[in-house]
Amino acid sequence: MPTESIAPQPPLPLRPEVAELEPSKIVALWQQGFGRDDLIPLWVGEGDLTTPQVICDAATKALADGHTFYTHKRGWPELLDALDGYHGRLHGVRPEPARLSLTSAGMNGIQLILQAVLRSGDDMIALTPVWPNALAAAKIHGGAIRDVPLARRADGGFTLDVDALDAAIGPATRAIFMASPSNPTGWTASEADLRAVIDLCRARGVWLIADEVYHRFVYDSAQPASAPSVLPLIDPEDPVIVVNSFSKTWAMTGWRLAWLVHPPSMGPAFDSLIEFNTSGAPAFLQAGALAAIRDGEDFAREMVERCAAGRELVLQRLGAMRRVTLARPEGAFYAFFKVDGVSDSLAYAQQILERTGVGLAPGIAFGAAGEGHLRLCFASSQTRLATAMDRLASLLDD
Amino acid sequence: MPTESIAPQPPLPLRPEVAELEPSKIVALWQQGFGRDDLIPLWVGEGDLTTPQVICDAATKALADGHTFYTHKRGWPELLDALDGYHGRLHGVRPEPARLSLTSAGMNGIQLILQAVLRSGDDMIALTPVWPNALAAAKIHGGAIRDVPLARRADGGFTLDVDALDAAIGPATRAIFMASPSNPTGWTASEADLRAVIDLCRARGVWLIADEVYHRFVYDSAQPASAPSVLPLIDPEDPVIVVNSFSKTWAMTGWRLAWLVHPPSMGPAFDSLIEFNTSGAPAFLQAGALAAIRDGEDFAREMVERCAAGRELVLQRLGAMRRVTLARPEGAFYAFFKVDGVSDSLAYAQQILERTGVGLAPGIAFGAAGEGHLRLCFASSQTRLATAMDRLASLLDD
Repeated sequence: MPTESIAPQPPLPLRPEVAELEPSKIVALWQQGFGRDDLIPLWVGEGDLTTPQVICDAATKALADGHTFYTHKRGWPELLDALDGYHGRLHGVRPEPARLSLTSAGMNGIQLILQAVLRSGDDMIALTPVWPNALAAAKIHGGAIRDVPLARRADGGFTLDVDALDAAIGPATRAIFMASPSNPTGWTASEADLRAVIDLCRARGVWLIADEVYHRFVYDSAQPASAPSVLPLIDPEDPVIVVNSFSKTWAMTGWRLAWLVHPPSMGPAFDSLIEFNTSGAPAFLQAGALAAIRDGEDFAREMVERCAAGRELVLQRLGAMRRVTLARPEGAFYAFFKVDGVSDSLAYAQQILERTGVGLAPGIAFGAAGEGHLRLCFASSQTRLATAMDRLASLLDD
Repeated sequence: MPTESIAPQPPLPLRPEVAELEPSKIVALWQQGFGRDDLIPLWVGEGDLTTPQVICDAATKALADGHTFYTHKRGWPELLDALDGYHGRLHGVRPEPARLSLTSAGMNGIQLILQAVLRSGDDMIALTPVWPNALAAAKIHGGAIRDVPLARRADGGFTLDVDALDAAIGPATRAIFMASPSNPTGWTASEADLRAVIDLCRARGVWLIADEVYHRFVYDSAQPASAPSVLPLIDPEDPVIVVNSFSKTWAMTGWRLAWLVHPPSMGPAFDSLIEFNTSGAPAFLQAGALAAIRDGEDFAREMVERCAAGRELVLQRLGAMRRVTLARPEGAFYAFFKVDGVSDSLAYAQQILERTGVGLAPGIAFGAAGEGHLRLCFASSQTRLATAMDRLASLLDD
């Protein structure tokens, strides 16, 4: 044992994968605008409604009833049963509780998936533009990202090019990350698209990570309850994992509650991965999640209607501005629009924030394919959106 | 695009590090006993008290006030300030909020630390017997574990052998995981022990992960408020990260709230790592955490007194049983005792559960050095513990 104390040494390096992580560009902007009185925050993926009372009441009651102890890691059996039924009602298939794992956020679920499947040196394909956080998580695990941009339609909207996806799969490709409905583009895969991607994953031995957190947010559709899901199209042991969340449908972004649908054989792996990360979501919050599934359907429909109205307003107002190119988003709750003459979307979002107090997310945050664009969340009241449009007009319609 | 559907293929393999994970032996036992009417669960690390009212009320109010949106990833500034003051009161040093990160459980915090520092192929030293979950997290990240057993004193208690620790550090050693007060042994490092370990980490360029979640649970001590902490002994940029938690001190095991004290230079890394995992703890739960720090001191003292009484009862009753060897644990809230003639502690814990309804954790769950032992959590009422002692006597005092 040393008898004389050793002086402090220079800091030890972090893992390069972590030292090189870039902070989210949306978060940086969020911090810039935090506390500004006239801020209209349309940059993050959440609406302006608080969680419905029936959900809060259930969590409050569970807390008062003493549900403050450790609980089931993958979720209350009762909650998993309820989720099983929810999928049955929406998609006509019940995945069975053995395929369900509750996680502490959709992002947390993606972390667990990547820990299960992505080896250091593997790569993950991302259909871009896409919400960047899943890609950052892959980098944390030593993965590399291959961008496959969605193809552009003549009207500025997005479409899937399965051949490009196929061509991008290399020997180190381990997974495809696909969000449908997509944040930020609103692109929503058709059933034929989904079948083609599933076939590709089967044929090439690649995992499909299917982000369906915006599944309820579809518009102009003959099937209003949900976007097409991979669930009715797969066998339980197909290499497909669905990420879903309570956040968007039930205004529960702050609750950090989500769920995965995975092959039943992965249950033990998720048991362990959850145990060794958050050890499961708080029991009394799970009571809120159960109320969302059982008693939250009216709110879910109201939420989607509210977004449909927000979308119409934004399409009419923003879509008519001189410098804006905006296609109708089929799903999710964002307008992802191109601004004529803008090549640095982060600087432009900062300028808009500075001059108008409207918070928008820069397109570059969603990958190189998003540069020149801005993302606006329309999950807000008509009044708020109209005010934002008035302010934006000074810059975008000049 | 394929025109004919591809048939399902055999399941893809998981990462070997994850496929090989063993489920926690405590969890397996917990599942065995779940729902048994006469169960006395002394196997997991939580007491029998629900979270104090003042904490539940604060969370309930925050929920009612609409704190259901995204929030600061590393914790509310107000909460970090309160934690800063808490450390000042306990240890005489305020680490500053830039060194504090709120996490979604102590286990979640350990995951984030390992993601930041442990490269695949590195190894982590663990002072054993020790709570196994941190070691499992290291394995998930491709790390290997080097056991350094605590040395045994003549009375059966545990002590630190710094030379053994020094000798165990190899070229691939990246971190030492040290829990003090220790789960399961109750071993509590002296200030001299801590200085020696810190010096060793400085000299050898190794991270110290200092698990201080049982910091309030010390007995027979002239300094009753807290076990010795590394915090007053380090420079901010020393390679030392403290893990602490709301779980034990404030009966909040089910809330999944904890915090890290880390070098200020690691703040951006933890910003990102939290963003890309749970994206932060729920805002309204943070209100509960704030109440714990501000208004929870009476409960914390009551909790420690309750454990002190539980410890006395267990030492007297269990310690006197014919087949039991039990040293006085200096800290934490466990009796970690050897049973004469037992070489398979898991089978023996199952037998005890089967025959008496008392749930104990098998020593093997805490590493090879724990085999032949059982762990009993004494954070319970006198009545409950006395009943458990009566039942255990039939096996352990025969």
